[in-house]
Amino acid sequence: MSRNILILNGPNLNLLGTREPDIYGAQTLRDVENACVGLARELSLSIDFRQSNDEGELVTWIQQARGHTDGIVINPAAYTHTSVAILDALNMYDGTVIEVHISNIHKREEFRHHSYVSGRADGVIAGCGTNGYLLALRQIAHRLG
Amino acid sequence: MSRNILILNGPNLNLLGTREPDIYGAQTLRDVENACVGLARELSLSIDFRQSNDEGELVTWIQQARGHTDGIVINPAAYTHTSVAILDALNMYDGTVIEVHISNIHKREEFRHHSYVSGRADGVIAGCGTNGYLLALRQIAHRLG
Amino acid sequence: MSRNILILNGPNLNLLGTREPDIYGAQTLRDVENACVGLARELSLSIDFRQSNDEGELVTWIQQARGHTDGIVINPAAYTHTSVAILDALNMYDGTVIEVHISNIHKREEFRHHSYVSGRADGVIAGCGTNGYLLALRQIAHRLG
Amino acid sequence: MSRNILILNGPNLNLLGTREPDIYGAQTLRDVENACVGLARELSLSIDFRQSNDEGELVTWIQQARGHTDGIVINPAAYTHTSVAILDALNMYDGTVIEVHISNIHKREEFRHHSYVSGRADGVIAGCGTNGYLLALRQIAHRLG
Amino acid sequence: MSRNILILNGPNLNLLGTREPDIYGAQTLRDVENACVGLARELSLSIDFRQSNDEGELVTWIQQARGHTDGIVINPAAYTHTSVAILDALNMYDGTVIEVHISNIHKREEFRHHSYVSGRADGVIAGCGTNGYLLALRQIAHRLG
Amino acid sequence: MSRNILILNGPNLNLLGTREPDIYGAQTLRDVENACVGLARELSLSIDFRQSNDEGELVTWIQQARGHTDGIVINPAAYTHTSVAILDALNMYDGTVIEVHISNIHKREEFRHHSYVSGRADGVIAGCGTNGYLLALRQIAHRLG
Amino acid sequence: MSRNILILNGPNLNLLGTREPDIYGAQTLRDVENACVGLARELSLSIDFRQSNDEGELVTWIQQARGHTDGIVINPAAYTHTSVAILDALNMYDGTVIEVHISNIHKREEFRHHSYVSGRADGVIAGCGTNGYLLALRQIAHRLG
Amino acid sequence: MSRNILILNGPNLNLLGTREPDIYGAQTLRDVENACVGLARELSLSIDFRQSNDEGELVTWIQQARGHTDGIVINPAAYTHTSVAILDALNMYDGTVIEVHISNIHKREEFRHHSYVSGRADGVIAGCGTNGYLLALRQIAHRLG
Amino acid sequence: MSRNILILNGPNLNLLGTREPDIYGAQTLRDVENACVGLARELSLSIDFRQSNDEGELVTWIQQARGHTDGIVINPAAYTHTSVAILDALNMYDGTVIEVHISNIHKREEFRHHSYVSGRADGVIAGCGTNGYLLALRQIAHRLG
Amino acid sequence: MSRNILILNGPNLNLLGTREPDIYGAQTLRDVENACVGLARELSLSIDFRQSNDEGELVTWIQQARGHTDGIVINPAAYTHTSVAILDALNMYDGTVIEVHISNIHKREEFRHHSYVSGRADGVIAGCGTNGYLLALRQIAHRLG
Amino acid sequence: MSRNILILNGPNLNLLGTREPDIYGAQTLRDVENACVGLARELSLSIDFRQSNDEGELVTWIQQARGHTDGIVINPAAYTHTSVAILDALNMYDGTVIEVHISNIHKREEFRHHSYVSGRADGVIAGCGTNGYLLALRQIAHRLG
Amino acid sequence: MSRNILILNGPNLNLLGTREPDIYGAQTLRDVENACVGLARELSLSIDFRQSNDEGELVTWIQQARGHTDGIVINPAAYTHTSVAILDALNMYDGTVIEVHISNIHKREEFRHHSYVSGRADGVIAGCGTNGYLLALRQIAHRLG
Repeated sequence: MSRNILILNGPNLNLLGTREPDIYGAQTLRDVENACVGLARELSLSIDFRQSNDEGELVTWIQQARGHTDGIVINPAAYTHTSVAILDALNMYDGTVIEVHISNIHKREEFRHHSYVSGRADGVIAGCGTNGYLLALRQIAHRLG
Repeated sequence: MSRNILILNGPNLNLLGTREPDIYGAQTLRDVENACVGLARELSLSIDFRQSNDEGELVTWIQQARGHTDGIVINPAAYTHTSVAILDALNMYDGTVIEVHISNIHKREEFRHHSYVSGRADGVIAGCGTNGYLLALRQIAHRLG
Repeated sequence: MSRNILILNGPNLNLLGTREPDIYGAQTLRDVENACVGLARELSLSIDFRQSNDEGELVTWIQQARGHTDGIVINPAAYTHTSVAILDALNMYDGTVIEVHISNIHKREEFRHHSYVSGRADGVIAGCGTNGYLLALRQIAHRLG
Repeated sequence: MSRNILILNGPNLNLLGTREPDIYGAQTLRDVENACVGLARELSLSIDFRQSNDEGELVTWIQQARGHTDGIVINPAAYTHTSVAILDALNMYDGTVIEVHISNIHKREEFRHHSYVSGRADGVIAGCGTNGYLLALRQIAHRLG
Repeated sequence: MSRNILILNGPNLNLLGTREPDIYGAQTLRDVENACVGLARELSLSIDFRQSNDEGELVTWIQQARGHTDGIVINPAAYTHTSVAILDALNMYDGTVIEVHISNIHKREEFRHHSYVSGRADGVIAGCGTNGYLLALRQIAHRLG
Repeated sequence: MSRNILILNGPNLNLLGTREPDIYGAQTLRDVENACVGLARELSLSIDFRQSNDEGELVTWIQQARGHTDGIVINPAAYTHTSVAILDALNMYDGTVIEVHISNIHKREEFRHHSYVSGRADGVIAGCGTNGYLLALRQIAHRLG
Repeated sequence: MSRNILILNGPNLNLLGTREPDIYGAQTLRDVENACVGLARELSLSIDFRQSNDEGELVTWIQQARGHTDGIVINPAAYTHTSVAILDALNMYDGTVIEVHISNIHKREEFRHHSYVSGRADGVIAGCGTNGYLLALRQIAHRLG
Repeated sequence: MSRNILILNGPNLNLLGTREPDIYGAQTLRDVENACVGLARELSLSIDFRQSNDEGELVTWIQQARGHTDGIVINPAAYTHTSVAILDALNMYDGTVIEVHISNIHKREEFRHHSYVSGRADGVIAGCGTNGYLLALRQIAHRLG
Repeated sequence: MSRNILILNGPNLNLLGTREPDIYGAQTLRDVENACVGLARELSLSIDFRQSNDEGELVTWIQQARGHTDGIVINPAAYTHTSVAILDALNMYDGTVIEVHISNIHKREEFRHHSYVSGRADGVIAGCGTNGYLLALRQIAHRLG
Repeated sequence: MSRNILILNGPNLNLLGTREPDIYGAQTLRDVENACVGLARELSLSIDFRQSNDEGELVTWIQQARGHTDGIVINPAAYTHTSVAILDALNMYDGTVIEVHISNIHKREEFRHHSYVSGRADGVIAGCGTNGYLLALRQIAHRLG
Repeated sequence: MSRNILILNGPNLNLLGTREPDIYGAQTLRDVENACVGLARELSLSIDFRQSNDEGELVTWIQQARGHTDGIVINPAAYTHTSVAILDALNMYDGTVIEVHISNIHKREEFRHHSYVSGRADGVIAGCGTNGYLLALRQIAHRLG
Repeated sequence: MSRNILILNGPNLNLLGTREPDIYGAQTLRDVENACVGLARELSLSIDFRQSNDEGELVTWIQQARGHTDGIVINPAAYTHTSVAILDALNMYDGTVIEVHISNIHKREEFRHHSYVSGRADGVIAGCGTNGYLLALRQIAHRLG
């Protein structure tokens, strides 16, 4: 069985590790991808790791994941709070969806407390730093059995 | 006279008919386009039927419709509730604007009850399924006389 | 088959065409009825067209339509925003319900943006002027097949 | 080094697995404890697993954990949404705090969307079922290095 | 020293001067650019003047300005009110940020009163017409000394 | 002594038992009246049982009950949530007022949670099905001694 | 010239003077009518004084006043706070409209602070007791010149 | 068959009859228990009557009632408005739940108008004084048949 | 008997008649004073007519009116909506207080709909133009008998 | 005369002086008790000083103070904001109640600004550090004379 | 050392003791001043006691206290709820600020529950009658050591 | 031509430069005045620079500027958020109004985000430090041509 997982990263995460380390830590997105690849191998998952600043591109990637992946790990970043389009795309997706936030969004500005994506996500992991991506992979592996 | 009409479809409508048929019905977007083409011929309208997942692209298409079309039928989908940019583009458009929603958005989640686009639309048709597109074309034809 | 349709008009619509033409247009309610009769004949529908200023009378008419009509077209006018009783009567009705507003209520005062009736209506058509009644009849005919 | 972890369970979790399995799954709290014990051994953690229906008792247990534990995993259940006292007790605790919810609270009633505890928690894991407890242990182990 | 300034214009500003002159004035965006170039020369600033309808593209341009520019003048237009992604990109930028609105947004619709960008901007200039761009350049020059 | 009781039923209750039995049960309003008559005899009460879809008629009936009845049992149905006029009429009534709702209105739509009538009612009984009318009669009998 | 004035009284005002004298005073509606007749004669006005508990009847009376009266004095009582239908009927009326409340509604329950009718009324007089009717007549006479 | 009923009383009800008689009446909780015992015998019910000031203890008693009782009559007193834990415990209980309030909570402070327990209760009886307990027993007997 | 009346005018009313005549009419404050003096003579009242832009001065004048006047007519202008201090001064005043607004404040901006002064005023007269002052004097005369 | 005073401390105050000294200062609860004992002797008061993490226990202690004490000084800590049960217990208490908060709760998180207890307290003292307890004792002594 | 204290009283407090004694007590402001002078002598404080109805004058007095006083006791009266200017003046003051309210403002109208001044005050004392001024002086003396 | 400009400064700005330099900078109001005088000469403007802590005085100064000045630069400071009287005075002024805030008020407390003055101002400049006054003068000069 394939056990393909799509890992999506929203706007500005391409700059991870280079700014605001007190909020987001010192790891770059490439570091996160490498760690995910490593754990995925251990868990017998195959991963596709992407980032975009563009809401429409994220929507399209989610659409394309239909039928070809078993799960999506998504850190929607800023679009967490504003994108109904990403929510709708996820609503049309059948597999497991785990939402990840590097920081604990509930300790930040009021407008970051609400997530459209949480209305669809199976699981939500926040405030666990970049380790949250690995926990998300473990959770998907746990569900795939 | 030209009587050109632009029919715009927002994010995720490219998947119409393949998911959530209880909400959106079984017709594909291609089916809708064909039905629109058929009625347009009967009503002596010429139509240009498009879909995009990208807010910016939808804005640009609306801008380009200025001076070349007599009306826009728009199903903004998820951007209905979040896009001021589409509202602003429509505010700069002179022709008739009919907003269409396949489902009755007032019976769905609270956040789907508000439409930025309705602040500009001449007419709003919701909950009439994909037949709503045809009603919208009839309304534009009615206004064009 | 009968294909009977009840068309209900709420308070003040008896004055249609005589006041505030910038909002409601120049047609009288009699004009609207005539146009509906004409289209109904074309669509093989039989219509019963009524108006009342009285919330209770509208409730009673909806109750009486149970079992004898296939659809209701209702322009609840002011009761759109204040009548739970009409909503409850419609909740007890099995046929198709299309809600019509001559003006686009979303461009008017804040208190006109909410409709109790939309919580039950199958379709909602607003801002299409008195042509909205005809679109509503077409939608019911479309559903009746 | 000790690496002691306190795992706290709030009201009604003693009935886990016996009711509402569609929300909470079929595992009993004893099953969860056993799974935690197993993983803790693997991660070289020592755990103390408790449940109480009493807000005051939970407060006292958190107070007693000061100086003797390196982290707290807490599923505050109903007190998530109503207890400032538990928040205050956690505010006086120095170690890592991971908040766990078996279900995705953001998909349930509105009043379950707000968590006082998230204002203090380092990490929050929701909707991962009882596996969330294990992810929480992994996150604490990750932070302890 | 370089003293490079990026001037960003959000959605629909490419149509400036062609529509709604009572709100936005008669100057085109090209006119504004020319005026900015003229003043920049006087103030010994070098400017890069851009417009996009695409939220993601604006985010990317802000990211690319890091390390290469001393300030950003941004008229986010419709994205002012809806884009957390642009806010986040600006949060990762070190230089001076001046937010410009041609009209006084506080005199327009309620939803235009709130600006996500103001949460990051050093200065905000609204209602000064296209002259606001020139005031913004002067303010940046003033800060650069 | 007379011990006259007026039992008032609001809009759509004339259809009781014929629709939405999952909410309102299978008894007709006539069944309810018969049960009330039976219990009233046992409790030595004399009852007058009425229903109207008309807010003004309900107001008038309440006014007429002044001086001639010892209590009112009222199920205001939809007018519960919208009628200040019925509240004002009850405010001018001296006897005992018991408000009855067949369903538990607190488990239904948000707008059904507020009752104007509760601001005047002595007692409120909800969710006890049509048996609630009998409990209301017992409560009035209890107060009359 | 005719100088006809319609004086409308809403629900429960037929009981004026018989209940809650601390709020509404001791005068009956007949007393008020007599006082109005007296002053009208002095001011050369002709008055038609009516009361109804029925929202629809009040709407109809306002409609009928179009073209035959120069002004309406209306005490909408409970319908002040709930009737959009009366507001709409007044919106279609050309003459002067003076809204009267016997008590100062701003000192009563919160829900009595808002008046739909005030959105149309030319003048509003509250808390002047039944003398408010006479002040209203004087104001209309003042406007008629 | 057993027909066991648990009657639960929340905080401060142990002082019933000794303070604030204008709100709660003159009966003591012991008087209420005696009246319940009397009626229960008549209705062939067996009752267990308890009071606690402790939220956790009330939760535990509700849990213990599972499988051993056919119904719960609960007057949650202050916990009505603040306890999600009691709501959750009741959500795990299969039998009939009748919520009782001695006073009409809708006539008291705003914060007493909302009840978490009503989101689960089958029936709600308020403002019937201590007789409300007896009506609740009758309702349970009615449902048990 | 003295029958002294203080007439107070708030900020900017000194400019009455010179600006915004569509809202406030063409009469100057001196015209209003003269009209008041004329009517006061007819009604056997003695008046003291003042204006101030200063909240504290208005407070002091109200304080000084205690014991020396039988009534206050106050047009608080902008302080209507912002001054608790004026409300408190009026709360310490025993005589009749009539609040006057030249325009109908309920038809203007939302923030002008609330009046602190109405929480104390005996009567409120709005939208009757400068004639409202005269109606207020008549109301005080009516109350003084 | 006895002049007995009960001093109650809510959850987490047993840790006073050991954590968050910037908010709560360096004194322990024992230090506070000693200072109270000292001042009480000077003021001829007899005090009973207690702390509990348990809402129900605090309720019970307040109940027991009825008839045996002349006043209660209460620092409800976290229960300030969430406990209606403590409010209800205090509502049944006849003596003087002074509410004390060590920190100025109005300068902290929004949810700490509201106090249920203030709805009953005679006096409220906040932000005076642990000296607030002594001021509270002085206030009770002042009232006892 | 000087130990100068400024005691400021807001609008209408000059009437203290002459009106509304149930809210404010029977002492005059002169009585309060005398009591303060007496206690100040005992505490080795020097006091300056003032009252003004004028917001601007209070602001100026606070400004003048900078550098010459060690603390301010302020009863802002009505300006508590409306004056940002007083808050700003206090924000520029370095000494101790104690806010005093004679009544418990939390038991009065909703709009009296919020205090701008509490956002700056070190301590807040409410509901202790005029004795609150003396407690405030003791608190300042306590802080000065 | 005269080209007179009034520059108004609200409460506490007389202390500029002496306190809270992180918010307001180190320049004194005299420094600002001097800079304004310098630039005004360059722009051929004549300026009148004033400050007051008194709302009424500011209102009067704005009134007196009518007919004698071409523009007003106003930094309303605390009155920005609370003064309808200043708004009303500006509404009666014909010339250009530029509102200046030294700090970016949108980054400060919530209550500082709303400005009554912005409802009238032609332009708003915030967060540009004291340089904002100079930008405001340039904008007025730009408008005067």
